[in-house]
Amino acid sequence: MPPSLPPVITAFEQSPDRGRGLARDMRVRWALEEADQPYEVRLVSFDAMKGPAHRALHPFGQIPTYEEGPLTLFESGAIVFHIAQRHAGLLPEEANTRARAISWMFAALNTVEPPILDLQTIKFLERDKSWYEERLPMVENRIRDRLGELSDHLGNAEWLDGAFSAGDLMMVAVLIRLRASGLLNEYPNLAAYVARGEARPAYQRAFAAQLAVFVASQAPAG
Amino acid sequence: MPPSLPPVITAFEQSPDRGRGLARDMRVRWALEEADQPYEVRLVSFDAMKGPAHRALHPFGQIPTYEEGPLTLFESGAIVFHIAQRHAGLLPEEANTRARAISWMFAALNTVEPPILDLQTIKFLERDKSWYEERLPMVENRIRDRLGELSDHLGNAEWLDGAFSAGDLMMVAVLIRLRASGLLNEYPNLAAYVARGEARPAYQRAFAAQLAVFVASQAPAG
Repeated sequence: MPPSLPPVITAFEQSPDRGRGLARDMRVRWALEEADQPYEVRLVSFDAMKGPAHRALHPFGQIPTYEEGPLTLFESGAIVFHIAQRHAGLLPEEANTRARAISWMFAALNTVEPPILDLQTIKFLERDKSWYEERLPMVENRIRDRLGELSDHLGNAEWLDGAFSAGDLMMVAVLIRLRASGLLNEYPNLAAYVARGEARPAYQRAFAAQLAVFVASQAPAG
Repeated sequence: MPPSLPPVITAFEQSPDRGRGLARDMRVRWALEEADQPYEVRLVSFDAMKGPAHRALHPFGQIPTYEEGPLTLFESGAIVFHIAQRHAGLLPEEANTRARAISWMFAALNTVEPPILDLQTIKFLERDKSWYEERLPMVENRIRDRLGELSDHLGNAEWLDGAFSAGDLMMVAVLIRLRASGLLNEYPNLAAYVARGEARPAYQRAFAAQLAVFVASQAPAG
């Protein structure tokens, strides 16, 4: 029996990505839309994120969190997995195919995303350092290693392992973070893969919802 | 019905950590020992890891992989989760408590491990760079941010969320990678938490098994 109230997720009150859909609430919104589940959003300021009330939900003071009756979850990977376990549309029913799709979720988060996070870190924290110009290509080349391997695996396939799954959702969400770098365009099949993800109606609805939050945050008060 | 043959995992023929239990096969060995499941190990050379036969199992050319009848998995997080789904001892039965334990698995791999990987990368690839001395403390401080938050959450508890789970297994396995840095000792409750993990008989058996592989690899031929 589904819970009587929709789950509540948290998102940035003012997303640092300015509504480009790169914040991790996007992954959860997208999963909920794929599963055709309603949800509510509570916006959190940067200050509140680091305060005790939010840390009781998320020990690392980040978004998103997920509250559903007595259950509170954190980590976008765990929340997407939870949604995928409870609703159809995100994980195959057959046990082995399902386990493979879960492998891709972990691959997105633990193998592909770390060097991409490193690129975001260097651009945010090291742009004014003397070593920035020399170190940047080292970081980009580590990303290229991963993208090349992923591109080889994907080949001409539509999705990573058969039908669209939470593994694709997570991989697309991670790869989108590379858009501004231009690196994705060096791998046309990956760029097309990401575009297929973004073209899904569930993605579009999730993107519009997070963009609306950002637009509202920019509106003049009163 | 359990499969008739034990699963086969892959591990480094010559582990770059020299048997200190830092390679990712350790996580899978530990999970299998917690679940009291037999397993076999196929050792893979660095060259073979990057060859087509191994890449058919692991698109990113890494270890460990997991083969169980027709099922092949990669990513230590996914393999540990698979083991935990099928055998008692690694995830709570109650759905909400179980979802929380899974949150901690993802937190270990996607929130705590990335800055630790960055420290390993800088020590391995940037030690001879002009910026090493200035950049090292920046990387260490990002790790301290995470350790401080984790330490605050853990407090005086034995494990992260009630009884020992796959979430603790993964977190301990990630934190152990910090041993050589000394950072862990700045957080006594985390150091004690890691020591509790290492004291588990299943950990001890897994550690001994991976160490034996390394010792054998060092023995003179013939």
